[in-house]
Amino acid sequence: MAVDKFLISLFMHIGIVGLGLIGGSLALDWRQAGYTVTGVSRSSQTIAIAQERGVIDQGGTDLSLLHACDVVVLCVPLDRLVTVAAAVCPHLQPNAILTDVGSVKVPVVQGITPLWPQFIGGHPMAGTADQGIQAAQSHLFRQRPYVLTPTAQTNPQQLAQLQTLVAELGARWLLCDPETHDRAVAWISHLPIWVSAALLGAVAQESNPQTATLAQQLASSGWQDTTRVGGGNPELGVCLAQYNREPLLQRLYCYRRELDRIIALMEQQDLAALTAYLQHTHTVRRQSPANHTLPQEF
Amino acid sequence: MAVDKFLISLFMHIGIVGLGLIGGSLALDWRQAGYTVTGVSRSSQTIAIAQERGVIDQGGTDLSLLHACDVVVLCVPLDRLVTVAAAVCPHLQPNAILTDVGSVKVPVVQGITPLWPQFIGGHPMAGTADQGIQAAQSHLFRQRPYVLTPTAQTNPQQLAQLQTLVAELGARWLLCDPETHDRAVAWISHLPIWVSAALLGAVAQESNPQTATLAQQLASSGWQDTTRVGGGNPELGVCLAQYNREPLLQRLYCYRRELDRIIALMEQQDLAALTAYLQHTHTVRRQSPANHTLPQEF
Repeated sequence: MAVDKFLISLFMHIGIVGLGLIGGSLALDWRQAGYTVTGVSRSSQTIAIAQERGVIDQGGTDLSLLHACDVVVLCVPLDRLVTVAAAVCPHLQPNAILTDVGSVKVPVVQGITPLWPQFIGGHPMAGTADQGIQAAQSHLFRQRPYVLTPTAQTNPQQLAQLQTLVAELGARWLLCDPETHDRAVAWISHLPIWVSAALLGAVAQESNPQTATLAQQLASSGWQDTTRVGGGNPELGVCLAQYNREPLLQRLYCYRRELDRIIALMEQQDLAALTAYLQHTHTVRRQSPANHTLPQEF
Repeated sequence: MAVDKFLISLFMHIGIVGLGLIGGSLALDWRQAGYTVTGVSRSSQTIAIAQERGVIDQGGTDLSLLHACDVVVLCVPLDRLVTVAAAVCPHLQPNAILTDVGSVKVPVVQGITPLWPQFIGGHPMAGTADQGIQAAQSHLFRQRPYVLTPTAQTNPQQLAQLQTLVAELGARWLLCDPETHDRAVAWISHLPIWVSAALLGAVAQESNPQTATLAQQLASSGWQDTTRVGGGNPELGVCLAQYNREPLLQRLYCYRRELDRIIALMEQQDLAALTAYLQHTHTVRRQSPANHTLPQEF
């Protein structure tokens, strides 16, 4: 570690509000990199576990613990972010950088910026199937995208500080405006949930019990892959749909037009056009970074 | 091996027409189990490789080689099955069992039964991403479903013989009528192809280049899983749609109704109903055998 970087880390104090999988994993990596980490949780049991596991330097249930932090990261669920930000702000020192880890950015940035102008939205695209402080792990964000959504008001020096912290995780930081982020995740993360869920919803409509049983018996990896995200956490799926509703609806309409087109071609028995369609989608998928190390869905 | 089983295998002679991944892998396993295997291919090079690899006992490009076979398995692509069956039948001994490995059963059974009343449709649900005789491997069908579709005319003794051969592969045989098979695979294999392809087709409609690029950069395992089968072999996808058109169309209509329902609930911001929907699909997926050893898509 270079001397200047060492001095920055020595004096930089990071606060993490919410010590679940994401908050706990961020704390672990940053503490390991030499930063001082204060954790705040609603649960004193979570704090005890975090201290026992060496995830944080100090912590408690009281937000006033954040008064000395240079950077505070809100790691609470999407639907609690603005409320928690409002409770946190009175305790922050004037130049503190506030950021979050929510999966949707427009409503969060719009909700928190009036409360704290130095707020910079963030979204680390990583996760596991497990939740909670017990699931926190080192290197969760390595090689994963970590989106930051600065706005016209963002202080470039504060943005640079945040980028340094993200780079410290081994993550690949990406900058974009909140709107572009939300449209992009609507495509690749929120739309697939409903496309996949509709497939599960449809098969459950099968009225012939013999067909339904055989379908279950024959279900292979293709079925399992296509239905994975549609069978995930219901509350998370609806929360994402709620907060990213308009971009998601636009993409659902676009998806339905594609489906209508496929159905029409099949009704017309236009095999040449159907082949061209699958040749097109084959190419689209090849262009997506399928062979890279892929981040898990957050 | 029990003596009677040994005698059966000693005297049973199996013919394989088409020595690709499936035909070659069947030949390997049956030969290893002690059966005599004759292979027929259009390509003398394929025969040479099959002999070199020990996949077959003997073989060639001439269908008359099948004259001594007790069982003949047609392992050619779906759209060539009936034509090849017509060419094969004149060379079969009167009591020979004829079967196939096609992924759709109604048109195959309807097309071949008039040519050879002892025809019994089959569908081993196994495969790999590779094709051809070079990809042939032992134990490809172990623990995988292998559907047989007897009809009212099927001779029970011949069916039992075929079941014995399937069991010899370590596969799990399942019996059903051709119609039930085609409806079941429409659900779990053919519908997902188009559901997944429409997702790739939709994202390719994104007109904002910044959003399109970011979507690509953020695509994670959820996106990759949901789009896998839609980015597969175009000719295979269309061939399945062509031969299983009516069952597939019915299921596409059902899927579109589910999608319309989701869109309506999202327009109405009915979060409770959307949550109930995802709770339902979560349960449906849990009921499917997700934690079993899963066969690859064929």
